Amino acid sequence: MDNTYDAIIIGGGINGSSIAFQLAKRGRKVAVLERERLACKSSGAAAGILGAQTELTEDGPLFEFARKSRTMFPELVKELEELSGVPTGYQNKGMYKVAATEDQLLELKDLIEFQTRAGEKAEWLPNNELLKHEPNVSSSLLGAMYIPNDGQVDARGLSLAFAKAAMVLGAEFFEYTSVNDFILQGDKVIGVQTDQGPIHSEAVVAATGAWSKFLFEKTGLSIPISPVKGECFSAIAKKPLINGTVFSHGCYIVPKQSGRLVVGATMKPNTFDEKVTVSAISALMEKAQLLVPGIADAELERAWAGIRPLSDDGLPFLGEHPSYRGLYIAAGHFRNGILLSPATGELMADLLDGKVEDLGPFRLSRISGGIHA
Amino acid sequence: MDNTYDAIIIGGGINGSSIAFQLAKRGRKVAVLERERLACKSSGAAAGILGAQTELTEDGPLFEFARKSRTMFPELVKELEELSGVPTGYQNKGMYKVAATEDQLLELKDLIEFQTRAGEKAEWLPNNELLKHEPNVSSSLLGAMYIPNDGQVDARGLSLAFAKAAMVLGAEFFEYTSVNDFILQGDKVIGVQTDQGPIHSEAVVAATGAWSKFLFEKTGLSIPISPVKGECFSAIAKKPLINGTVFSHGCYIVPKQSGRLVVGATMKPNTFDEKVTVSAISALMEKAQLLVPGIADAELERAWAGIRPLSDDGLPFLGEHPSYRGLYIAAGHFRNGILLSPATGELMADLLDGKVEDLGPFRLSRISGGIHA
Amino acid sequence: MDNTYDAIIIGGGINGSSIAFQLAKRGRKVAVLERERLACKSSGAAAGILGAQTELTEDGPLFEFARKSRTMFPELVKELEELSGVPTGYQNKGMYKVAATEDQLLELKDLIEFQTRAGEKAEWLPNNELLKHEPNVSSSLLGAMYIPNDGQVDARGLSLAFAKAAMVLGAEFFEYTSVNDFILQGDKVIGVQTDQGPIHSEAVVAATGAWSKFLFEKTGLSIPISPVKGECFSAIAKKPLINGTVFSHGCYIVPKQSGRLVVGATMKPNTFDEKVTVSAISALMEKAQLLVPGIADAELERAWAGIRPLSDDGLPFLGEHPSYRGLYIAAGHFRNGILLSPATGELMADLLDGKVEDLGPFRLSRISGGIHA
Amino acid sequence: MDNTYDAIIIGGGINGSSIAFQLAKRGRKVAVLERERLACKSSGAAAGILGAQTELTEDGPLFEFARKSRTMFPELVKELEELSGVPTGYQNKGMYKVAATEDQLLELKDLIEFQTRAGEKAEWLPNNELLKHEPNVSSSLLGAMYIPNDGQVDARGLSLAFAKAAMVLGAEFFEYTSVNDFILQGDKVIGVQTDQGPIHSEAVVAATGAWSKFLFEKTGLSIPISPVKGECFSAIAKKPLINGTVFSHGCYIVPKQSGRLVVGATMKPNTFDEKVTVSAISALMEKAQLLVPGIADAELERAWAGIRPLSDDGLPFLGEHPSYRGLYIAAGHFRNGILLSPATGELMADLLDGKVEDLGPFRLSRISGGIHA
Repeated sequence: MDNTYDAIIIGGGINGSSIAFQLAKRGRKVAVLERERLACKSSGAAAGILGAQTELTEDGPLFEFARKSRTMFPELVKELEELSGVPTGYQNKGMYKVAATEDQLLELKDLIEFQTRAGEKAEWLPNNELLKHEPNVSSSLLGAMYIPNDGQVDARGLSLAFAKAAMVLGAEFFEYTSVNDFILQGDKVIGVQTDQGPIHSEAVVAATGAWSKFLFEKTGLSIPISPVKGECFSAIAKKPLINGTVFSHGCYIVPKQSGRLVVGATMKPNTFDEKVTVSAISALMEKAQLLVPGIADAELERAWAGIRPLSDDGLPFLGEHPSYRGLYIAAGHFRNGILLSPATGELMADLLDGKVEDLGPFRLSRISGGIHA
Repeated sequence: MDNTYDAIIIGGGINGSSIAFQLAKRGRKVAVLERERLACKSSGAAAGILGAQTELTEDGPLFEFARKSRTMFPELVKELEELSGVPTGYQNKGMYKVAATEDQLLELKDLIEFQTRAGEKAEWLPNNELLKHEPNVSSSLLGAMYIPNDGQVDARGLSLAFAKAAMVLGAEFFEYTSVNDFILQGDKVIGVQTDQGPIHSEAVVAATGAWSKFLFEKTGLSIPISPVKGECFSAIAKKPLINGTVFSHGCYIVPKQSGRLVVGATMKPNTFDEKVTVSAISALMEKAQLLVPGIADAELERAWAGIRPLSDDGLPFLGEHPSYRGLYIAAGHFRNGILLSPATGELMADLLDGKVEDLGPFRLSRISGGIHA
Repeated sequence: MDNTYDAIIIGGGINGSSIAFQLAKRGRKVAVLERERLACKSSGAAAGILGAQTELTEDGPLFEFARKSRTMFPELVKELEELSGVPTGYQNKGMYKVAATEDQLLELKDLIEFQTRAGEKAEWLPNNELLKHEPNVSSSLLGAMYIPNDGQVDARGLSLAFAKAAMVLGAEFFEYTSVNDFILQGDKVIGVQTDQGPIHSEAVVAATGAWSKFLFEKTGLSIPISPVKGECFSAIAKKPLINGTVFSHGCYIVPKQSGRLVVGATMKPNTFDEKVTVSAISALMEKAQLLVPGIADAELERAWAGIRPLSDDGLPFLGEHPSYRGLYIAAGHFRNGILLSPATGELMADLLDGKVEDLGPFRLSRISGGIHA
Repeated sequence: MDNTYDAIIIGGGINGSSIAFQLAKRGRKVAVLERERLACKSSGAAAGILGAQTELTEDGPLFEFARKSRTMFPELVKELEELSGVPTGYQNKGMYKVAATEDQLLELKDLIEFQTRAGEKAEWLPNNELLKHEPNVSSSLLGAMYIPNDGQVDARGLSLAFAKAAMVLGAEFFEYTSVNDFILQGDKVIGVQTDQGPIHSEAVVAATGAWSKFLFEKTGLSIPISPVKGECFSAIAKKPLINGTVFSHGCYIVPKQSGRLVVGATMKPNTFDEKVTVSAISALMEKAQLLVPGIADAELERAWAGIRPLSDDGLPFLGEHPSYRGLYIAAGHFRNGILLSPATGELMADLLDGKVEDLGPFRLSRISGGIHA
C-alpha cells in the first residue's frame, strides 16, 4: 500500500465511496479503507428509496439537503453507470404514502400542504384515484399522498457504482483493512493506523456510519450516534404488483426488477446484531399483506438486516473535528444514507477543498458537552 | 451403466433407498435411478417427525404398519450410521400434541384412551404438567397429549444414510437419470427405458412419490396419488427452547441440533410447485409464536417446500402391478414417508423375495375402476 | 388453468420464451409449460456470448441464421427491456479469438478471409495490436482474430425478459408443470397431457432442448439430439481485466458487470448430470490463467453446469412433425441457443402463422431412418 | 447485559469458547464477547485436523502441549456432545504424510525416528503398504509416514459444542459486541469498553487470534502476531475415497461424512483479506488430483478462507500481561488452534484459578523489546 495520500476515507459504504468519487474527480489521490467488503453493511442492506419527501416531514436543513441531493440523481447515475459499468437501478416512479385511518389522512393532508408551499409536488389521491394508479393496493385504504419525485435505486448497485467509478478515476480501495486509530500531531491529523501499518494523509474522512463513535473516543469527542437495526425481506411476484413504492406506518414495499418486492423495515435501537428474527419478518409480512394483498402469493426470497446510524438530533454529522485540523466525519445519515450520498460526496469534497467554510447545522461543534479530555 | 440387475428401483428418495438397502443386504444386485439428486424432493424437505401416534389417529393397517416401522429405528439407525458414516439425527424425546380449546382437549383424551387400549404409551398432561416438561410452550394451552415414543430424525440424513449404506453393500445409484417408460414383455416387466438407454431387470420398483401417476398411465393403471405441497421454515434459537416436538392444529415445531427449530407445514393440494409463499410463512410464524412464544426472537434461517404423495384413501400403495409381473410400486406415504421407510424397505424386499404374498390393504388391486385399456 | 390455447409451448427456456413472445405479440393466446422454473436449465447456465462469427466457422444455413439473429438484438433488447423491466445485459464490445500456435494463426487467417468474403467484419490483430486492445491478455499469444460485432448478453436476464415481456402481452406461463404426453387425433395434435391434467391446442411447440428426444419417441420419431454438459465458473476481478470476450481453444472468458468474469466451458457428451467436477474447474482455471494471467488474483465466485442439446448434424430442428400437423419442435441449438433465440422465435411464429412453408435444412424430415412405428 | 463477571473472554472462536467452558464448569460467571458470530473466523474455516505429529515436527514445549491436548479429545468430545447436543465429528482414523521424492522420504524417516523415541506411534509405509491402507492415493508415491493417532474433528462443530456446553453451564455469550478497549486501573484490568457500554471484571482473557495485536497496543505491548490467510475447498465424492487424512507438501485432503473431502490450504502472510482467489483453488486442485486422482470426478462444493494467527517464534501466547494483573491473552495458535483448544481451555482456567504460576515458553514476557511506553 502506497503510503501518502491527499485524502484517506475510512469506510467503503455508499458515503465513503461517494466522497472518494468526488475527490478523485477533482484529481485528488485518495485511499478508501474498508474493514470488510465494499457496501457490506447498511449500504448493501438498504431498500434504496429516495424519500426526500416521504421520510422528511418537516422543514429544516435536512429537508433542504435531501431535496438538493435528490435532484443530483438523474445526471449522476448516468455518469456513474458510464464510468463504472455498474447498473444503479435508478428509477423514478413515485411513492404512495397511504392513510388507513382518519388521523393518518389528516396528517398527510398537512404534509401535502407544507410540501406544496415548499415548492414540491405532493398530491392527495382518494381511494378510487389511488386504485387507478396502483390497482393492487388494498381497497380499504382511505387514500394516499402521492409524491411523483421520490424515486429509488438499487442501494448496493449505486454504492458499488460510486466505488468502481472512483477506481476508474484513480482512487484506491483497500478491503479487509481496519483502522485502529488516527495518527495525530499537535492539532492536526497526519494519518491513520491500520492493521496493515500506518498510512499518511493530512485529510482523513470517517464515513463510518453506526461504527463512528468508538473511533472518535480517543480524540476526546463523544459523537452521539447509535445503531438502529432494520430487518427486511424480499419476495418475487409472478407479475409486477405495484409501480411506485407504497409506504405506510411501519412498512414500505419497494418494487424492483423482475417482480421482486423489497419489504422493510423494523427499527431496533442500540444493537449491532444483524440477525433477522422470526417476529420481525412475521410482523412485516402481516403489514405487507394488508397493504398489497397480492404479496401473499409472492415467493419468499430472502431476509436480511442492516444497522443504521442515528444521531441524537436526527441530523448527520458532516464537518471537521473541532480540535484536529484535517480530521472529518460524514456519518449519522440514519434512514437516508442512500438519498443523501450524492450531496454528501459533493459537500465533503467542497469542505476538503476549502470551498465551504462551515456546515452549519451539520457541524460537529453542536455536540452537547463538546470536547472532553 | 451395467445392463442387467436383480432389481431396479426408480426414485432415490428415502423409500427407494430403503428398499435398495434391504435388497443389497440380501445380496441382490440393485440399481437405483434418480432423475435429479438423491433425497432432492420430499425426503430432503421433511421435518423428520416419526409420528406413529401423533399423525395416525385411528386403528387400522396403517397404524399397525407405522408402529412396526417405528420400532425398527433404534437398531436400524445404528446399523446405517456404522455402514455409511452418515449421521441420521435420530432422537427419541417424545411429542406433545397440544390442546388450545376444550374441543381439542376432548379429542385428545379420546385419542389417549384409544392408544392406551392399543398398548401404546400416551398420557394427558394438564397445563401445569406440560409446563414442567416444556417450560417454553405457551402458558395459555390447556395441556397436551404426551407421546414419549414418537421420536424424530434428520430426514435428509436418514435418506442419505440408507443410500450410502446400500452403496457400501454393492447397490449402484445413478443420479440425473430419468426413467421414461417401462419395458414390458407379455405380462411381465423386463426393464426400463432411461434417457441414457435401456436397463434390464425382471423386478422394477417405482418409489416415485407424488410423481408416480404418470409413469403408470401407460400400463393401463391410473394410480390415485396426488401431490400436496408442504411449506416449512427453520429458525435458530440462542438456547434450546423445547426438548420434544410440539404439535398443534396446523403447525408443529421440531427441535434439532444447536438450537435449530423446524416449523411446518402447510397443505396445498394438487400442485408440484415448490415455491414458498409469503402467506404460508406468515401463517406458520404466527402459529409458531402462539405455541412457543420464545421463537419470536429466534433467527430466521431458511424456508423451503416439499411435495407429498397423497392417495385417495390415505393408504400407501405397496405391491405388484395387477397386470404385469415384476412391476411394483411403493408410493403414497403422504406425511409419513420418513416414519414408514424402514418397514417399507423390509416389506418390499420380502415381496420381491416371495416371502409375503399379498399386501392386503396396501395392494394395488384396491384401485377403483381397476385397469383401463 | 384455462383449457384451450392458440398455441402451447413446452419449455420455459430462452427459445420457448422467445417463441411465446413473438406469438403473444401477434395476438395469439399462448400457454408456456415449464417442468421446473423459467430458465432453470441451459438458458440460465449459458455464458451469453453471441458468437455468430466465433462459434460458426463455415458457410451454410446455420451461419446465415446466426447472422440474421445477431442483427435482431439491438432493437429487440430495447423492446424487451421496456416491456419487461428486466435488464438483458446486452453489450457489443467484440470478441478476440486468439492464436497461441502457428497452426491456430493460419486457421484464423483462413477464417478471416472467409468471413470478409461473406461480408462480415473480422480482422487479424498481431500480438502488439492485441495488447493495445486488451492489455491484460497473455503477452505470449501470437495475436487474435478480432470480431467487433460478436457481442454478449446476460443469458438468464434475456430469457426472463422474453418471458416477462410475453406475460405483459398476455401469454400465460405455468411453472412446475410437466408434459407427459402429446394428445394426438388422427394426423394432428390437439393438446398435451400434463401432470395437472390435459390442455388443448392445435399448435404445440416443443422447445425442450436436450430433453426433446423422449417426448417424441411415442410419435414414432427418434430425434437425434443428445445432451452435452458444459461446466463454467465465475470470478470477480477488482478492476475490469478485459473489455471484449477472449476466446481460445477450450476456454473463453466473458467480461460481465462489476469486474465479473465468466469462464467456460467443458464439453461432456451424453450426460444430464449437472454436477461440477474438480477436474473441470481445475482445467478451466489453468487455461484461463494462461489466457488472461490477471485472473489468478480474481475472487472465485461460483461454479455451475448446463446441459446443451446437440443434434447429429449440428443443426437445430425447427419445423413441423412429418406425421402430425400442428406439432412442432424448436430444439438442438447446442452452444448457440442464446444467439439464435431472436430468429428462432420469429421463424417459429412465422411457421405457425403459415408465413413460411418449409424450413429447409432445419426441417425434421431430414432425420435419417425417418418415422418408425 | 449484566455488568460484572468473574471473567470476560474476548472472542467467540474455539479457544475463547473452550476457556469459557472450563471456567463455567468451575462455577465461574463468564461473559464471552464476540464481534460478529460464534466461530465465524478461522475456527469455522479450519479443516479440523488434529495434527500433533503431522504439523509439529520437532521436540519442544509446543509438541508436548499438542500431545497433551490430543489425549484430551476422546473424553472431552463425549462430554461436550452430551451437554450441548452439537456433533463434533470427532474421528480417529489416522493421517498419512506422504513422500513423493527421495528427499521427502528421508525427512519422514527422520521424523518417524524422532517420534518413536518420543514415545509416539509413527510408521513408514512403503508404496505397496500405503496402497493397502488407502487404495485411492496416487500409486506413484514412494510411501507415507502413517500416524494412527492424529484424528480430526468438524472444527466449526467443536467450536459451537464448546460454546453451547458453556451456555448450558451458565456462561453468557454476546454476539455482535465489539471490544474497543480495556479498562485499566493502576496496574490491573477492571473491565472492557464495548460498543454496548462498559462491562466489568478483574479477569479479562483476549482469545482474539490474528486480531490480537491492536487491542494490546494501548497497553504498551506490541504482540508479534500476524495474520496468515489459508484458502480451502470442499468436494463430494460419490463413494468415500480415503479413510485417513492424506497430507503432502502444500496440500492435505481430509475425509468428512458422506464422501465430503476438505482440501487445504494456502499460506498467504500479512493479510486479513478473506477472498478466495482463482490461483489458490487452481493450485490446490492440481495438487489434490496428484495425491488422490479420484478427486478429479468429485463434485466441487464450495471454497472459503480463514485467517490464522502466526507469532514470530511460532509459539502461542498464553499468559498474563507483564504490566497489568488480570489481563490475559490466549492467541497465536497458527495452524493448530483446533488441536490445542482443549489444553488451552484447561491451562487458561488453571492460570486464572492460580493453579499454575508461569506458563514458561508461552508467557508474554518473552516478547523482544518488551513493554514500550
